[in-house]
Amino acid sequence: MLSGSRLAIDRALENFLAAAYNELTTIDSQLTSIGGALSEFLIGGKRLRPLFAIAGFLGAGGSPDDEGIYKAAVSLELLQACALIHDDMMDGSDTRRGAPSMHRRFERSHRERHGVGDSESFGHATALLIGDLALVWSTQALNLSGLSLTQLQAVNPIFDIMRVELMAGQYLDMHGGSRNEMTIDDALKIATYKSGKYTIERPLHFGAALSGAGEDFLPIYTEYGIPLGIAFQMRDDLLGVFGDSSVTGKPAGDDLIEGKRTALIAYAQQNLATNELNEFVKLFGQKSLTLDEINALRELIQRSGAVDFIEKLIEEKTILALSAIKDPKISRSGREFLSELAIKATQRSA
Amino acid sequence: MLSGSRLAIDRALENFLAAAYNELTTIDSQLTSIGGALSEFLIGGKRLRPLFAIAGFLGAGGSPDDEGIYKAAVSLELLQACALIHDDMMDGSDTRRGAPSMHRRFERSHRERHGVGDSESFGHATALLIGDLALVWSTQALNLSGLSLTQLQAVNPIFDIMRVELMAGQYLDMHGGSRNEMTIDDALKIATYKSGKYTIERPLHFGAALSGAGEDFLPIYTEYGIPLGIAFQMRDDLLGVFGDSSVTGKPAGDDLIEGKRTALIAYAQQNLATNELNEFVKLFGQKSLTLDEINALRELIQRSGAVDFIEKLIEEKTILALSAIKDPKISRSGREFLSELAIKATQRSA
Repeated sequence: MLSGSRLAIDRALENFLAAAYNELTTIDSQLTSIGGALSEFLIGGKRLRPLFAIAGFLGAGGSPDDEGIYKAAVSLELLQACALIHDDMMDGSDTRRGAPSMHRRFERSHRERHGVGDSESFGHATALLIGDLALVWSTQALNLSGLSLTQLQAVNPIFDIMRVELMAGQYLDMHGGSRNEMTIDDALKIATYKSGKYTIERPLHFGAALSGAGEDFLPIYTEYGIPLGIAFQMRDDLLGVFGDSSVTGKPAGDDLIEGKRTALIAYAQQNLATNELNEFVKLFGQKSLTLDEINALRELIQRSGAVDFIEKLIEEKTILALSAIKDPKISRSGREFLSELAIKATQRSA
Repeated sequence: MLSGSRLAIDRALENFLAAAYNELTTIDSQLTSIGGALSEFLIGGKRLRPLFAIAGFLGAGGSPDDEGIYKAAVSLELLQACALIHDDMMDGSDTRRGAPSMHRRFERSHRERHGVGDSESFGHATALLIGDLALVWSTQALNLSGLSLTQLQAVNPIFDIMRVELMAGQYLDMHGGSRNEMTIDDALKIATYKSGKYTIERPLHFGAALSGAGEDFLPIYTEYGIPLGIAFQMRDDLLGVFGDSSVTGKPAGDDLIEGKRTALIAYAQQNLATNELNEFVKLFGQKSLTLDEINALRELIQRSGAVDFIEKLIEEKTILALSAIKDPKISRSGREFLSELAIKATQRSA
């Protein structure tokens, strides 16, 4: 179910991108560079949000033969492209999926052709616009997906609040990083918005709205989506510290170098002995960490009990999510799909 | 007509902002700072794009008593807020409407509360998100404006292409600034997209679509909008060099300091004698220009004949625009409004 849906999403995305690229580059041939960069960027990606939208649609009784849903789901992947491109700028990340991040890519091309002005500024400005373009294409994809007017009316309020919540989550995340203290509760709140709601709950609601399901479906999907989103984010936090860089496509210990304040880090800081905490604080967030220093931080986190705590949280939240979809209102095929996705989201290495 | 419409737009904008601010800050009280900053930012502004949308609506036979049009037009002001906030980041502008630009405002607040990390990065990241939020609110305002489904279906394709054209124009503008050469034709092409289409033609089409007018209205508005947009941009270029900073709210000679390559500058560079051109190139775009140096650049531009050339272009393009709206298909009240707006757009000092 998962791989078939993924293929259908990829095909719908390719079709949209071909038309949108054509529209863009007809304006001026210089726009091939940004149109091409955004299209290429979209080749990667796990398609998690579109997949949850399809699962939400099927679970609420939608038919897998309805082509419109795949086209509509593409808008969520384009929204995510905007979020990632802008996020990398905000975090100062140099890489994304093993390649230079968008702002670094254009910084480099500006430098190579000896453009006028500062290369770093040019890279940032271009990535900023490409992210904006992704956000614009996202709405356009939904408008062009051939949905009925009733479907559009049902899905628009969900898409609107979803995007507001995304920006809210990004801000809380960044603001948290710029304060001295981040508690486990703060981190879980951010995970609730950035992952629970944005990655899972709202895509499910999006799919349910398109199926024509009544409002009674929404709470079931919330009960599944919020805990699963937290579990998903906790897995992400573990991978950001312990992930194998050849699999994640990110530098080893990325979150340690970046000084990202996650629930994992908050737990460790609260549970280390004072001398260990001092050692931790001295290294955490330093841009030039050696592999030995990264390993020292990893060991401190292990020793604090944070890894066990987070793994247990992932397990508990996944069980909660899976029990929510036992509700008989959910179609059998939808339930199977949602179970597959729960495992994909929480038991992954990239 | 103009001031009445402006009041109705302001009222619709305030109502939208109150609801959107409430929705946002219900997510988390920390979001008051970005919700408040965006709402405040929207207090200023000429409402030019919403006004053109109303004019397009009335000219095509829409009724001024239709409240939905004012609510829908608000989406164009929110789109413009995104464009300005992100534009100031891309240009590295410190001020907007006499106040610190959005990224500088948050850079300062971060510095004042001694936040963790780099204040400039925090300012940029926050402004990036606020611009994204403005773009999201822009679509939301349209979705909430109570338009009929037929109206939504008519207006969505126009709103989609309008936003793609905006991003395209921004990129061409920036890309032009990063190359050594910008011809008058290049500058006029950018003006066609950034002002002709984005500021005038598309808002008129937006209004026409909402009135239920047939496709035959669109070419009339294009004939008016494109030349008027060029005239509008040429006025902007003159103000960017010669404007009175107490009226424009921008530093004196802003475009000279920024090294902005406009049609005015392109004409001057092409028509100065070699020794004058050398003097010009030495100063143009220097960040620390004195008032004497700004005046020296202004005099060189005057001497090249560029000001006369641009003033003549403004006059010609405005005449072209005004003759397009003599078409009898346009309602009388619409024609009056469009004439008022043509004068407002081209004979202004800020």
